[in-house]
Amino acid sequence: MNQDRRDRLRDAAIAVLAREGGRGLTHRAVDEAAAVPTGTAKNYFPTRDALLRAAAERCAERYHALAEALAEPGPQDGAGAGAGAGPGAGPADAAQLAALLAGLLRDTAGPGRTRVLAYLELQAEAARRPWLAALLDPVAAADFAAHAHLLRAAGLPAGPERALTLALHGAIPHLLTGAPATLAAAGLDDLDRFTRELLATVCGEETR
Amino acid sequence: MNQDRRDRLRDAAIAVLAREGGRGLTHRAVDEAAAVPTGTAKNYFPTRDALLRAAAERCAERYHALAEALAEPGPQDGAGAGAGAGPGAGPADAAQLAALLAGLLRDTAGPGRTRVLAYLELQAEAARRPWLAALLDPVAAADFAAHAHLLRAAGLPAGPERALTLALHGAIPHLLTGAPATLAAAGLDDLDRFTRELLATVCGEETR
Repeated sequence: MNQDRRDRLRDAAIAVLAREGGRGLTHRAVDEAAAVPTGTAKNYFPTRDALLRAAAERCAERYHALAEALAEPGPQDGAGAGAGAGPGAGPADAAQLAALLAGLLRDTAGPGRTRVLAYLELQAEAARRPWLAALLDPVAAADFAAHAHLLRAAGLPAGPERALTLALHGAIPHLLTGAPATLAAAGLDDLDRFTRELLATVCGEETR
Repeated sequence: MNQDRRDRLRDAAIAVLAREGGRGLTHRAVDEAAAVPTGTAKNYFPTRDALLRAAAERCAERYHALAEALAEPGPQDGAGAGAGAGPGAGPADAAQLAALLAGLLRDTAGPGRTRVLAYLELQAEAARRPWLAALLDPVAAADFAAHAHLLRAAGLPAGPERALTLALHGAIPHLLTGAPATLAAAGLDDLDRFTRELLATVCGEETR
């Protein structure tokens, strides 16, 4: 088994899930999306559950890579994405943390849309498949720990990471559908202002 | 067209979406779930999009009926669900509001599970169907207005309804999958404590 081809198939499974939903996830659709000979996907991932697992694991990998990239200052720091004071140091204050979180949400609505749409489909499938729920469980749980860590790094109190994480999770489907009344009611029409205000709400006076 | 039969078909569409996902939503599956002659669903809702619309409208109706029932004191008040001081009066304080919100989340994980699972599927489909996103837009937007109203009724400050609503929206998929590490990290393993702490986090000292 070729690792490059395997990753290409896993990315194709994500693309199919995002474009057509769980309904469209077949071996043939994945072969076509990956531009590989018919039968290849079935060779690597023999069942539909194996395809779902492959997509879920790839989503988690791509999400972790993004979160790490955003937490470290890159060559394009200042573009609103990089937010750290040094590799692994994390945001130095509430403003840097707000910028980092806005970067994550901007990715959801933009370049990461395919991955996040696929994740939404997987989450719905997980409610009917305990093995998939178990696979996604550490991914979601890690978000709470990561946000607790980021709050501490930014000098903010521990505790509000629950409300913060759930509010960010709750924002995702709204960003993906882009429904205007909901985006306006949620304040998601301006992501920088949104994350600043969200931090102020959940952390109280500490951020002002 | 018979209204009772129409509602029965719409409830069946919700049940099929919940049980099998968007993948399983066919006219034949809806006929079977509603125990009506083959062809009936197609008669009432000629296309798959018409089935999706029927399910979405029915979800919204059932959700509104639940929210109204929870906001008014019923004969079983004190069971943790009823939370009002009188019909339409809303919660009188933060504790009553926390009980009302816990009642809504308890419904999500319990009797309302089918409706909420179907809604999750519709939300994922809405990211690919602008007409469905437009149909769900006022439903989600109304949640923010309803929570602002409830906060005011409970004597709490306006403003935190955005974080509150998004955190409640974010809690839903976790409640549906029931993944233990995520539920523990989110504090969703005790819904009464969860809503009390969430209100305290987003409203600050006012609730203590």
